[in-house]
Amino acid sequence: MNEVKKISSLQNPLVKKVLLLKDKARERKKSGLFVLEGRRELQLAIKGDYEVSTLLSCETLVSEAEVRVLIDGLKRRPQLVTISKEVYQKIAYRETTEGIVALAKSKLHTLEDVVLENKNPLVLVAEAPEKPGNIGALLRTADAANVDAVLIANPKGDLYNPNTIRSSIGCVFTTTIGLGSTSEIIAFLKSNGVGIFCAALTASKNYTDIDFNASTAIVVGTEATGLSQEWLQHSTQNIIIPMRGEIDSMNVSVSAAILVFEALRQRELKGSK
Amino acid sequence: MNEVKKISSLQNPLVKKVLLLKDKARERKKSGLFVLEGRRELQLAIKGDYEVSTLLSCETLVSEAEVRVLIDGLKRRPQLVTISKEVYQKIAYRETTEGIVALAKSKLHTLEDVVLENKNPLVLVAEAPEKPGNIGALLRTADAANVDAVLIANPKGDLYNPNTIRSSIGCVFTTTIGLGSTSEIIAFLKSNGVGIFCAALTASKNYTDIDFNASTAIVVGTEATGLSQEWLQHSTQNIIIPMRGEIDSMNVSVSAAILVFEALRQRELKGSK
Repeated sequence: MNEVKKISSLQNPLVKKVLLLKDKARERKKSGLFVLEGRRELQLAIKGDYEVSTLLSCETLVSEAEVRVLIDGLKRRPQLVTISKEVYQKIAYRETTEGIVALAKSKLHTLEDVVLENKNPLVLVAEAPEKPGNIGALLRTADAANVDAVLIANPKGDLYNPNTIRSSIGCVFTTTIGLGSTSEIIAFLKSNGVGIFCAALTASKNYTDIDFNASTAIVVGTEATGLSQEWLQHSTQNIIIPMRGEIDSMNVSVSAAILVFEALRQRELKGSK
Repeated sequence: MNEVKKISSLQNPLVKKVLLLKDKARERKKSGLFVLEGRRELQLAIKGDYEVSTLLSCETLVSEAEVRVLIDGLKRRPQLVTISKEVYQKIAYRETTEGIVALAKSKLHTLEDVVLENKNPLVLVAEAPEKPGNIGALLRTADAANVDAVLIANPKGDLYNPNTIRSSIGCVFTTTIGLGSTSEIIAFLKSNGVGIFCAALTASKNYTDIDFNASTAIVVGTEATGLSQEWLQHSTQNIIIPMRGEIDSMNVSVSAAILVFEALRQRELKGSK
């Protein structure tokens, strides 16, 4: 095992760096690093082939043996740091007793890296999702459905916001994600022969009347403004979940889940996925 | 119009009362009052036949004429109070410019008051949902699906937590809601001949293989612990949404939405709802 560094001062530069990386998207972008927290999140990051540069473990919560098991799957050993409980409580958001915080290298998630291997892929597209919590929830749905890719058009922030990681419960690390402008993603879908089904209020068919067995992208916009004109212009077919109550909208991750799981239901029925 | 009182002091007893009712479930229970905020929320509360006792409007954001329109649907005129911007900012959670806060009388939501008029009702049951945001999201889904009732078993808090109201976007006021112990709700469902479909991991059938056309209650537990044994003992059939990815759970409001909208899909296909 590498030499293990110990930190118990809140003024330590590494502690300050962790706090800065959690807070500032700018710092994450500049350094190419982000902060993750929790054992499951670390496991999923390793599974997703992320490079972990530093692993901080709280000395009163995690044993050296546990750390060895946790980093077993990593190709390159990270810098190992034990931290005092006080330092851990300063840098962790959780009140639970996980005791694990790590710095890892972010990925670029370019569209070029997104390879749709499935013959009839099922893709989830979200345009300009605003809240990190919503992005995390979308990724969690995408994981549960095992969609072929999640594409985020005109992203408002980076994927490595701590709230996105947390609300995705680490799915951000294992889901195939592509980022790009709306134009780029439309071009990507067209060049891959993927049908574009836009959740929209106008010229829409009930989603249960749509055949999702062919190559399908389900595209959702923001709750407040919906999808941009550009999406609607390139839509294969607009789709709608009829609202039967008093309010006229659903949470975007809930809508996405209903649409994606209807596509899965149809595909299982036909044995196509 | 009644005489309009004006408040500009943060020390005013009514201001303190509003803050206390927002913060403390105990105070809400003791007084039978709760706080709502926003125009849409007020409209839905009026539509849901709530008695509004006091309407506070921010003098710089809402005109007297607008207030008159807002309270038009009320049987009993509330006490009208204009408040300064400073007071409004103290008692409101929103940064937007709605300018409306009201005190209204809570309802008891006893099971005796829940009447299932539909011949084959579709009911959503949640056992011990913990987070107010989750309860709000469930209510929003229930509204969108126009289920016949939402029943909350062993509720952990009251329905009038500001976060529940906010995340339900006011659906808490228009949805038929019944509260009771798990035993009481099981007895209610049985006496009404409603099939009990428990979302559970054991002895479960894929939800897409279930016929939801007859009288149906979809029952969901908490993300952490699932449903209690009592539910499983009385289950007509356990159901499951197969998880296809890395993680083994979905957000409870997302699961509920997938299940409820599958029931609706089947019912529309058969023309039974």
